[in-house]
Amino acid sequence: MSKILPPSIQSLIEEFAKLPGIGPKTAGRLTFFLLTKPQKDINAFGEAVLSLKEGLVNCEKCFNISQKSPCEICSDERRDLTKIMVVEESLDVLALSKTNFNGLYHVLGGAISPIDGIGPDNLRIKELLDKLKKDTTSEKTKKIEEVILATDPSLEGEATAMYISKQIEKNGFEVNVTRIARGLPVGSDLEYADEITLSRALEGRNKY
Amino acid sequence: MSKILPPSIQSLIEEFAKLPGIGPKTAGRLTFFLLTKPQKDINAFGEAVLSLKEGLVNCEKCFNISQKSPCEICSDERRDLTKIMVVEESLDVLALSKTNFNGLYHVLGGAISPIDGIGPDNLRIKELLDKLKKDTTSEKTKKIEEVILATDPSLEGEATAMYISKQIEKNGFEVNVTRIARGLPVGSDLEYADEITLSRALEGRNKY
Repeated sequence: MSKILPPSIQSLIEEFAKLPGIGPKTAGRLTFFLLTKPQKDINAFGEAVLSLKEGLVNCEKCFNISQKSPCEICSDERRDLTKIMVVEESLDVLALSKTNFNGLYHVLGGAISPIDGIGPDNLRIKELLDKLKKDTTSEKTKKIEEVILATDPSLEGEATAMYISKQIEKNGFEVNVTRIARGLPVGSDLEYADEITLSRALEGRNKY
Repeated sequence: MSKILPPSIQSLIEEFAKLPGIGPKTAGRLTFFLLTKPQKDINAFGEAVLSLKEGLVNCEKCFNISQKSPCEICSDERRDLTKIMVVEESLDVLALSKTNFNGLYHVLGGAISPIDGIGPDNLRIKELLDKLKKDTTSEKTKKIEEVILATDPSLEGEATAMYISKQIEKNGFEVNVTRIARGLPVGSDLEYADEITLSRALEGRNKY
């Protein structure tokens, strides 16, 4: 295969194949698609890759990826400063920003996963607790009233949510800790749902 | 969405989303995946994109994308010069190179598709016919004995194969024209096959 492919094509196929969810076949298809495009379009893509991290910082408050610190969200005074949404990754902030949630975020930087060697100390859990501590004593900033645990509904995400809620309890912070609902995705088919999701949907049922 | 995303992230998401089979959600996931990588890896990817077309030419004989003209395949004297495999795209040559086919290729540059405004004159069909003409008169090059039509088994690919076979007949070239078999993919389930594929598999049945 490498014999008949020019090295520049081979090397882009290999780079594409490093991306998640892209196998060698798709990588080839993407590369040959780009080959049919004018150099101008290829340059736009290549330069967008190269300058991806230019001027990006982690917000000092919520740790979301941003152009400035504090980020747009943390420096927006119209937001509800009494609610803080705890997520694993910056990508989760992007997804949640399409809902009508109007509070603040706290990006942990992952989830507890002993298999991958990620413990509570590798995440920004201490920073979250510091935030709750600070806000209960300071008079200037609004008191945080609710911590919404929006980690993934996976084994790791659930463990992380449980760990954080226990830490908040242990430290005696007066704050409501909530967890996003687990249930049937909107538009899905009940018959295809797995039994854990169905059980969760039943447990979380509410008055109609 | 664009408000909370830094422009460099937004712009790479948009570039990824231009690629075939990549929607906005996947584009976001790929971009945020790259964000977690060191700048060295990001540079390797970006530079592979930018230099994709560097030093690439279309082979003057088979029109496959290559580093030199004639390409590696056309200038390989150990190949069977009596067989020529007609394909739509360079990517098809890559796929077929994994088989034990050892003849030459001819890349058409697409398939006849009136909807997309692609007629026979937009493809390298004339060049194929010239090749057959040249080879029957010259004494130096080996005579082409078989033209294998390996266009896609799609509406456009079938129309292109039929058009080429008629042109070869019309010009009275003494050459065997064959078409790659259509049937059940190896490893597939008969019950899931569509009826056209099943009919083709029956038509093309051979002695066991």
